[in-house]
Amino acid sequence: VPPRRISDSAVRRLSHYLRFLDEFESAGKRTVSSEYLADRGGITSAQVRKDLSHFGSFGKRGMGYPVGELRERIASILGLGRRWRVALIGAGQLGAALFHYAGFRRQGFGIVAVLDNDPAKIGRRWGDLTVADVAELPSVVHRHGIELAIVTTPAEAAQDVVDALAGAGVEAILNFAPRKLQVPADVTLRDVNLTIELESLTFALTQKQAAQQG
Amino acid sequence: VPPRRISDSAVRRLSHYLRFLDEFESAGKRTVSSEYLADRGGITSAQVRKDLSHFGSFGKRGMGYPVGELRERIASILGLGRRWRVALIGAGQLGAALFHYAGFRRQGFGIVAVLDNDPAKIGRRWGDLTVADVAELPSVVHRHGIELAIVTTPAEAAQDVVDALAGAGVEAILNFAPRKLQVPADVTLRDVNLTIELESLTFALTQKQAAQQG
Repeated sequence: VPPRRISDSAVRRLSHYLRFLDEFESAGKRTVSSEYLADRGGITSAQVRKDLSHFGSFGKRGMGYPVGELRERIASILGLGRRWRVALIGAGQLGAALFHYAGFRRQGFGIVAVLDNDPAKIGRRWGDLTVADVAELPSVVHRHGIELAIVTTPAEAAQDVVDALAGAGVEAILNFAPRKLQVPADVTLRDVNLTIELESLTFALTQKQAAQQG
Repeated sequence: VPPRRISDSAVRRLSHYLRFLDEFESAGKRTVSSEYLADRGGITSAQVRKDLSHFGSFGKRGMGYPVGELRERIASILGLGRRWRVALIGAGQLGAALFHYAGFRRQGFGIVAVLDNDPAKIGRRWGDLTVADVAELPSVVHRHGIELAIVTTPAEAAQDVVDALAGAGVEAILNFAPRKLQVPADVTLRDVNLTIELESLTFALTQKQAAQQG
């Protein structure tokens, strides 16, 4: 039984552990210590032990974690090891980059529908798919059993799209549109806002320059 | 004088306030209360007041914040209101999407150099630019006065690229390559890892399904 409340940052650390374990497995390691995992991730070994203790006991005390078993367990906690049916809404350049991103397929994310509202894009072939009209979003969601959506529309269109997705029963949305969106309580929304990431960098540079100037 | 230590999450909230203030300004609002800002951002008004109190006093007590003045102040804290010279390393599909992303230019981020290690890409025209050989990274950085870099290379190449950037004096890096990278203490690194974002969604969906079945 997975624990009830895990912080977002703990879930992110699980994703990182998973990647480190992949690396260790490729390098032929069978067991790994919390210190070793901590070192790779730049965090404390106490944090690693705490994170992993939430998910049952692994291996024998003092023997380190069994790499393969821990990898499988974390993948299962994260909902991996199965295929997720994903819709992409917004058939622009960013959408195309994500559509062709091999890392998604490798992790079990399959984009099975692409939608847009632009008549010039609707009906075009994207790989094996045909771009559908976003007006048909509910029927596309039901026909393909969509569980997850990626939104790469312009900011102005995003709230309407997200409302339509929530209305059609999609409960997990990754949003790239640069706008803070409202979703019902049963929908999980993650934002990837590229200018906000850049602003945290220019903030750091500006602070540093101010400190250097006295 | 900006305060010494501001958490990453506080900096992110400043970015969000900036966007809300843009909306309010477009809508013709002259002043805004902490409650109104809080409501737009889905946080408490106490948090808003605390965040903004770090940056001096604004307007008169009980009168709300002056929208224009607060907007300018936050933009200046975040290092906006000037142009930042950015290099893009990795001339693939994601790189192309970011290169054409209008939001960057609007916020003052100008991609002035594109680099790759693929002979088939080096020398190609991207808008007004010519894709340069990543082997010439140090001279490109110096010639263009690059302050910030966006890395969209494959995972295997990213650490070498980041080492070269740090060696050439670039102190702020936005990394899209799906690997945890090491940087010297004077370099600020932000990761955008798209599969990790998706994993936080599948984690949430899996937890929900387990709860419904149990």
